[in-house]
Amino acid sequence: MYIKDYRDLPLEPSGVDGLTVRWAINASQGASNFAMRILDLEPGKSSTMHQHDTEHEIFVLAGSGEVESDDGVHPIAEGAVLYVAPHESHQFHNTGAEVMRFIDVVRFPLILPK
Amino acid sequence: MYIKDYRDLPLEPSGVDGLTVRWAINASQGASNFAMRILDLEPGKSSTMHQHDTEHEIFVLAGSGEVESDDGVHPIAEGAVLYVAPHESHQFHNTGAEVMRFIDVVRFPLILPK
Repeated sequence: MYIKDYRDLPLEPSGVDGLTVRWAINASQGASNFAMRILDLEPGKSSTMHQHDTEHEIFVLAGSGEVESDDGVHPIAEGAVLYVAPHESHQFHNTGAEVMRFIDVVRFPLILPK
Repeated sequence: MYIKDYRDLPLEPSGVDGLTVRWAINASQGASNFAMRILDLEPGKSSTMHQHDTEHEIFVLAGSGEVESDDGVHPIAEGAVLYVAPHESHQFHNTGAEVMRFIDVVRFPLILPK
């Protein structure tokens, strides 16, 4: 069985300023349907506003901020669960003083818009 | 967008003594491929040893214990990520003093053995 402390996983750049990613479970562990990532968004930083064909299932592990979507801006904090539907626009803002860390489960293949 | 503090979700019996479940994301939120559950295993309790056709992707939120599988018994604690492959036997034991709480992402449909 694959077991790993997520803090021992390499922190990789995501391509977005202030957003780093740990790939917790993906094809390397045998997953073929959905992957688990752990994202860190630095204070004052935002992800890009985007949408894609596949859904996100998210759990906020630490920190606080906002998520912006077609239906407005919503506060989120540690303990929040989010379902981002396919084609639903979404952008995360870290408005807090600490890193906003969240588990992000995504269906294969996650094809991000350019 | 669906956003919910997981602590506001009802804690439901799982059918296993000492194991309760919060359904964080499933078909009610529009999910059609995989679901997110949050499981609480009481100190001294174990889930059943079982296996099924679908994988688990797990993140341990709190507590400590062990997971037992075909390849032995492994310690787990807060921050552990686990990939349980399809048909891989698995049983969780809470050997700690506090509730072991974990996020469990499962593919639809999760059909448990009787």
